[in-house]
Amino acid sequence: MQTTYAVGVDVGGTHLAAGLVERSGRAVRQTQTLTPTSGPFAIVDAVIDLIAEATSGTDPSRIAGVGIGLPALIDFRNQSIEFCANLPLAAIDVRSVVASRVHLDVTLDNDSNCAAIGESRYGAATGVRDFVMITLGTGVGGALLLNGALYRGSRGFAGEIGHMVVRLGGPQCSCGGLGHLESYLGRPAIAARGRDAARISRGGALRTRAGGDPDAVTAEHVVQAALAGDSVACGILLEAGEILGEALVGIVNLLNPRLVVIGGGIAGSADMLVARAADVVGAKALAGRRDVTVVQALLGNDAGVLGAAALALDEHDSREVPFGERAL
Amino acid sequence: MQTTYAVGVDVGGTHLAAGLVERSGRAVRQTQTLTPTSGPFAIVDAVIDLIAEATSGTDPSRIAGVGIGLPALIDFRNQSIEFCANLPLAAIDVRSVVASRVHLDVTLDNDSNCAAIGESRYGAATGVRDFVMITLGTGVGGALLLNGALYRGSRGFAGEIGHMVVRLGGPQCSCGGLGHLESYLGRPAIAARGRDAARISRGGALRTRAGGDPDAVTAEHVVQAALAGDSVACGILLEAGEILGEALVGIVNLLNPRLVVIGGGIAGSADMLVARAADVVGAKALAGRRDVTVVQALLGNDAGVLGAAALALDEHDSREVPFGERAL
Repeated sequence: MQTTYAVGVDVGGTHLAAGLVERSGRAVRQTQTLTPTSGPFAIVDAVIDLIAEATSGTDPSRIAGVGIGLPALIDFRNQSIEFCANLPLAAIDVRSVVASRVHLDVTLDNDSNCAAIGESRYGAATGVRDFVMITLGTGVGGALLLNGALYRGSRGFAGEIGHMVVRLGGPQCSCGGLGHLESYLGRPAIAARGRDAARISRGGALRTRAGGDPDAVTAEHVVQAALAGDSVACGILLEAGEILGEALVGIVNLLNPRLVVIGGGIAGSADMLVARAADVVGAKALAGRRDVTVVQALLGNDAGVLGAAALALDEHDSREVPFGERAL
Repeated sequence: MQTTYAVGVDVGGTHLAAGLVERSGRAVRQTQTLTPTSGPFAIVDAVIDLIAEATSGTDPSRIAGVGIGLPALIDFRNQSIEFCANLPLAAIDVRSVVASRVHLDVTLDNDSNCAAIGESRYGAATGVRDFVMITLGTGVGGALLLNGALYRGSRGFAGEIGHMVVRLGGPQCSCGGLGHLESYLGRPAIAARGRDAARISRGGALRTRAGGDPDAVTAEHVVQAALAGDSVACGILLEAGEILGEALVGIVNLLNPRLVVIGGGIAGSADMLVARAADVVGAKALAGRRDVTVVQALLGNDAGVLGAAALALDEHDSREVPFGERAL
């Protein structure tokens, strides 16, 4: 039977979101909550509650399954969480626990992979066979869609764009490496630049947004000040865009993609950062620069939920054997 | 009809090589010459001569075609040369000219792609579905084999690993960029480190190999001195290996490959460089470090010819429609 819906769940460091999504990509019901901080089982319970809320009153036979995007390295074939920097989920068999409680098939994937599936199916990358997704948030994530399908690498860990070196011996990254892209472009890095700027006389706009305390400046303050035209904040975002552009030059030279989609919390409102990155790619990449376009993501915060739901649909459909081909 | 042979041609900056190769990968005849320096048509004529020599006396109907690997960005679908840094071939329709003269199907590809096909079919990467090939020579080239097939990107330019940034604002690269991997690891970069070292008192071994003239030190002198145990030369190769390792950490994080194969003229004799790069990957890559092995290429100088021949066989076989499926 052709199912009508899938459930997408987006597990984030601060929020959990879920949606009941039609095949068309329309979310017919959406729900969210704060991510519990009282341990792994509280998070899993909250996910189960969200799924119950999203599916309440819907015939389960019309639901293809549940897709869950997590900020983690996922061993896709084993459906296990290999590493999760910001949430205590690495030892938990999330898939089995959730599946046994909601009585639906459950598929886990990396959150950037889900965002890429979402943008590919319903967003900025519709119909594009080869694209690179970058998500700028607390961390810098990524995903690769190659030859029309998500490329997960040999075990499911592909796409960790934030952990590519851009300056040998540079500042320490959350992973322990030095000079990785994330150590220049993640939310903590942009906030640190903002705090430094707020301490100098020209940084008045940033100080004001942080209530007068330079140490209270966040990445969001930098983005807001830049949107309001503050030149110091603009400078921080443009420099971040320049560094992202240099990294993208390398990725375009390596992968010759048709499209680069930049999403995530920071990118959504930082048009100038994305524009500067696009300019650098257009000026400096090898021949592939003429094939590629660099754009902002279209789905915003919905990419994760919509993509996770699309993942669940794909997994369901790949399990379904057409009637005519069934062994009777 | 099942063909028996294909011709592989490897076009290099200093040498041209060709071979008549069996499906098994055995080269039954090999021939080579210096690359002419008197213009593009002299190079094309020399290639045609080599092919004639390699195929002389063989029934043309038993030859699947000719594969030619070039140190160039190749638009694979159009079979055109988009950019060729070291040879004046960019404006020449090499495929058509050669095909019309040798009366065989001709397929062009990037030289690192050919090396990767060679290592995949007959060398260090046999049976591996996901691997990254790096070729260390005058330039730093690369190729990606993903899901069991060469990944060429949207137009055929994928794999240019040498043109990924490793140090923002670093030394100028042959492509004009700053701080790319090639600007640390290409033959000119290693030679420059060798010349610097030969000028200090501890650089006696390098001076001696260059006939007493520090300015005459080449990358090969550095490799030879290191093989003979000179600690200064070893230091240069180990530092290059460290930088290659840092770049590979990023590539492993991005692609989660099963294998990295390091080939090309420099790598063939610089075991310590490859070993150091492997150590860095094993220590610093994310979860994917446990999936990946870093090894030296197995085919040496033959990778290009064998891989180009395998490419010609693949192209021939993909054109052949099985008799039972033919429209009559």
